[in-house]
Amino acid sequence: MSTINHTVAALAERFELTFKGDGARVINGVGTLAGAGPSQLSFLSNSKYTTQLAATGAGVVVLREENLPDCPTSALIAKDPYVAYAQIAALFERLPAAPPGIHPTAVVAANAQISDSASIGPCCVIEDGAVIGDGVILGPHCIIGEHCTVGAQSRLVARVTLVTRVTLGQRVLVHPGAVIGSDGFGLAFDKDHWIKLPQLGGVRIGDDCEIGANTTIDRGALDDTVLEEDVRLDNQIQIAHNVHVGAHTAMAGCAAVAGSAKIGRYCMIGGNAGVLGHLELADRVTITAKSLVTHSIREPGEYSSGVPLQDNRQWRKNAARFKHLDEYARRLSTLEKDSTNE
Amino acid sequence: MSTINHTVAALAERFELTFKGDGARVINGVGTLAGAGPSQLSFLSNSKYTTQLAATGAGVVVLREENLPDCPTSALIAKDPYVAYAQIAALFERLPAAPPGIHPTAVVAANAQISDSASIGPCCVIEDGAVIGDGVILGPHCIIGEHCTVGAQSRLVARVTLVTRVTLGQRVLVHPGAVIGSDGFGLAFDKDHWIKLPQLGGVRIGDDCEIGANTTIDRGALDDTVLEEDVRLDNQIQIAHNVHVGAHTAMAGCAAVAGSAKIGRYCMIGGNAGVLGHLELADRVTITAKSLVTHSIREPGEYSSGVPLQDNRQWRKNAARFKHLDEYARRLSTLEKDSTNE
Amino acid sequence: MSTINHTVAALAERFELTFKGDGARVINGVGTLAGAGPSQLSFLSNSKYTTQLAATGAGVVVLREENLPDCPTSALIAKDPYVAYAQIAALFERLPAAPPGIHPTAVVAANAQISDSASIGPCCVIEDGAVIGDGVILGPHCIIGEHCTVGAQSRLVARVTLVTRVTLGQRVLVHPGAVIGSDGFGLAFDKDHWIKLPQLGGVRIGDDCEIGANTTIDRGALDDTVLEEDVRLDNQIQIAHNVHVGAHTAMAGCAAVAGSAKIGRYCMIGGNAGVLGHLELADRVTITAKSLVTHSIREPGEYSSGVPLQDNRQWRKNAARFKHLDEYARRLSTLEKDSTNE
Repeated sequence: MSTINHTVAALAERFELTFKGDGARVINGVGTLAGAGPSQLSFLSNSKYTTQLAATGAGVVVLREENLPDCPTSALIAKDPYVAYAQIAALFERLPAAPPGIHPTAVVAANAQISDSASIGPCCVIEDGAVIGDGVILGPHCIIGEHCTVGAQSRLVARVTLVTRVTLGQRVLVHPGAVIGSDGFGLAFDKDHWIKLPQLGGVRIGDDCEIGANTTIDRGALDDTVLEEDVRLDNQIQIAHNVHVGAHTAMAGCAAVAGSAKIGRYCMIGGNAGVLGHLELADRVTITAKSLVTHSIREPGEYSSGVPLQDNRQWRKNAARFKHLDEYARRLSTLEKDSTNE
Repeated sequence: MSTINHTVAALAERFELTFKGDGARVINGVGTLAGAGPSQLSFLSNSKYTTQLAATGAGVVVLREENLPDCPTSALIAKDPYVAYAQIAALFERLPAAPPGIHPTAVVAANAQISDSASIGPCCVIEDGAVIGDGVILGPHCIIGEHCTVGAQSRLVARVTLVTRVTLGQRVLVHPGAVIGSDGFGLAFDKDHWIKLPQLGGVRIGDDCEIGANTTIDRGALDDTVLEEDVRLDNQIQIAHNVHVGAHTAMAGCAAVAGSAKIGRYCMIGGNAGVLGHLELADRVTITAKSLVTHSIREPGEYSSGVPLQDNRQWRKNAARFKHLDEYARRLSTLEKDSTNE
Repeated sequence: MSTINHTVAALAERFELTFKGDGARVINGVGTLAGAGPSQLSFLSNSKYTTQLAATGAGVVVLREENLPDCPTSALIAKDPYVAYAQIAALFERLPAAPPGIHPTAVVAANAQISDSASIGPCCVIEDGAVIGDGVILGPHCIIGEHCTVGAQSRLVARVTLVTRVTLGQRVLVHPGAVIGSDGFGLAFDKDHWIKLPQLGGVRIGDDCEIGANTTIDRGALDDTVLEEDVRLDNQIQIAHNVHVGAHTAMAGCAAVAGSAKIGRYCMIGGNAGVLGHLELADRVTITAKSLVTHSIREPGEYSSGVPLQDNRQWRKNAARFKHLDEYARRLSTLEKDSTNE
């Protein structure tokens, strides 16, 4: 592979940063403070790692001005080094080549519309009425179901399934195994057995969203399931039918949102956290990992449930007591009354 | 697309409902009370939405007789409007066309048995000894492993994997990404490393079951893993080896059942709830979301675990106290004794 | 199918066990104590099942010497009957035939290196720079991305995705739907929107690891995500970027480990348990099901969180009290002070 080279000075100019030290130094990659070599760039964002800065072998470090005195090598000064690093590092990412055109093993319906600039990988299946926009990359084994639309510059890495009536905006990134537009889980109980409710809605995903590996997003029962723009979902997340997720909200792995819940903008949902159906979360609500949201949240802020981890023997004793907490509270009140009456 | 049309009177006759108002009105779809137009049918099941009834623009509404006075349009009267709506709405669902026959890109073993009326989609792989029944639809990319049987009228939407020794009953519906018949997780610890136990059983799924997207059902170690008829599993559920699930039980997204557990009939397992291995749950047990079942349950009823969501600062204080609950209970008892002795 | 036959005496010799009874008896399969017939082998490992031993119809039973008096049939005596049974049962497992060679529907990049003894199944896609070792079996629909390596004798059952820069050791077993090497979830917040951090690392999986169905393992941001040898992951597990899992650690279904966590050797992580990011767990730590690890653990042992399952009505009362636990503790202290001061 040919290397990707940028001088420190060129990086400074491109990202509007100032540099100290050797502007002519050629950088061909990125690394951690501990691991980077003289032709690599690193960064210091969390002051916890300042001690690693002094010992770094990196060719250049992106950092805040205040950390400059501790930097033994060239530096790029940024207000937010993590953001600047993210932008620079993207230059060194090698994405797989994806030449425009349709792989001969792909199966494409006669009335699907595919942009000439799109790249359709091996064994992809594109069904009736699907629309694939400019510059879209479908990696191997993607299935684009009936009446699905993939917006320009979106990338479905591999083995993504859009079942039906799914619309992806522009620059959407979907990871392998994700299933979007599967049937919502709608059942009516008829005397002694279940009857399935047809799921007649679709899914709308806004621009710049990212959907993690093996994440599932069901289509709506009547109206659509909606993710606004720049929603970021990690792996193995479950979004039920008719959920609405506000722009810029991020969810960590294994989070789950039940049917018709409405999550605000700029929310952060922790790993394996859950939100019950039909609830509403205000903007800028943070839910910590493994918490269960059982009521709507009207105010921004951080919310939690759960109990702390303990050595199993101690935990057993405390957990057993939890079963009597109501009784303890009553006994406490009784004691207080008795004490006052004495 | 051509429209699907039914008059109100025809719907009433077909589903044995009585109608009020305009029997000749033509209905071509369904919608919510708030969103439906004059050629659409809606329903009122939950009295919480009665205010929406008065303002609806729907052409006809399925409702209970008691709600008739508030209905501004034609009505179909049902004892259970949700069930009647489910049955009617199914008329308006458009399933993808699936003509009988085997797609030229499918790979089919010489000794697989495939009904002439089955539809085998692109890139399906059907292995030795597999049996595909009448009217079965395999969407794109399904894998039917050795000695698997798919019962008549079943539909595997897309990308479903049946690994080996899996038998699906009739009218089973399986969503994309589901894996059925994978190895159970059986290990023996031999001094300093793990030895795998071969998983020699299979999986039996009864008639009318539904299996959600990316759900996994392992095959048994010796005997089979079993789902009786009309079991309904949402997305991302994990069913371990040798689990037995009784008929008509439903599980919400991300629930998990550990090895050899036996779940009764008509149970309801909430989202992300868990059941430990080798436990038994009686019929008609409901487990609320995110609860962990750690002992067998002999009586029908609703069961829960977990603590409520709070503002993170308050929660931290309470959670820290949980670690001392046993001590508090002892101190409370001591105080009570002292109080009595005074 | 032809049967697989071994005499009791031959099994004893092969696995260095002593036998009692009929060494000439021909065994052609395995079964439970309750279900096995005269040509099948069973085992007794857990003394809980001793009553089943007396009634077994098995042709031979693997057991400890102390259980010999209760055995009504031939016996193979083992120090650890479960381990011996695991080894013997493997003889009776029928794996699907996988002849060496590349299926004509597979799509293989010109510069991929594939051993002549490897078996590449239908619709597999093998990309640039991939290396497939001796005796490797890729079942149908596997995707081996750029610069991925699959070590000798590994088996990817079906529909496994290795995204990029993934190295599997020897004898690794991966179940359907698993995704290894997907992008880690790395985001920087830039004023009002997210910026993605390119994920430039890879994944290294040691020899003899097993990866469950629909499990996801993200590749590292800079350094690699690592599983040492003999790590055993059940289904639907989520391993985030830069996690390091020590050798011989096992995780049950739906467990999740957040970014950069370091799990020790010989750990046992229970079903749906979680580990927060950047934590360290010592060797031989056991986490019980559904627990959340929120701090590093320095000592081996068993750790838990959560509260016990109760009848919903009782649970509601106790859970409501949890919200006031801090207040109760203060009130208890006040009462104690008052009591002392009297």
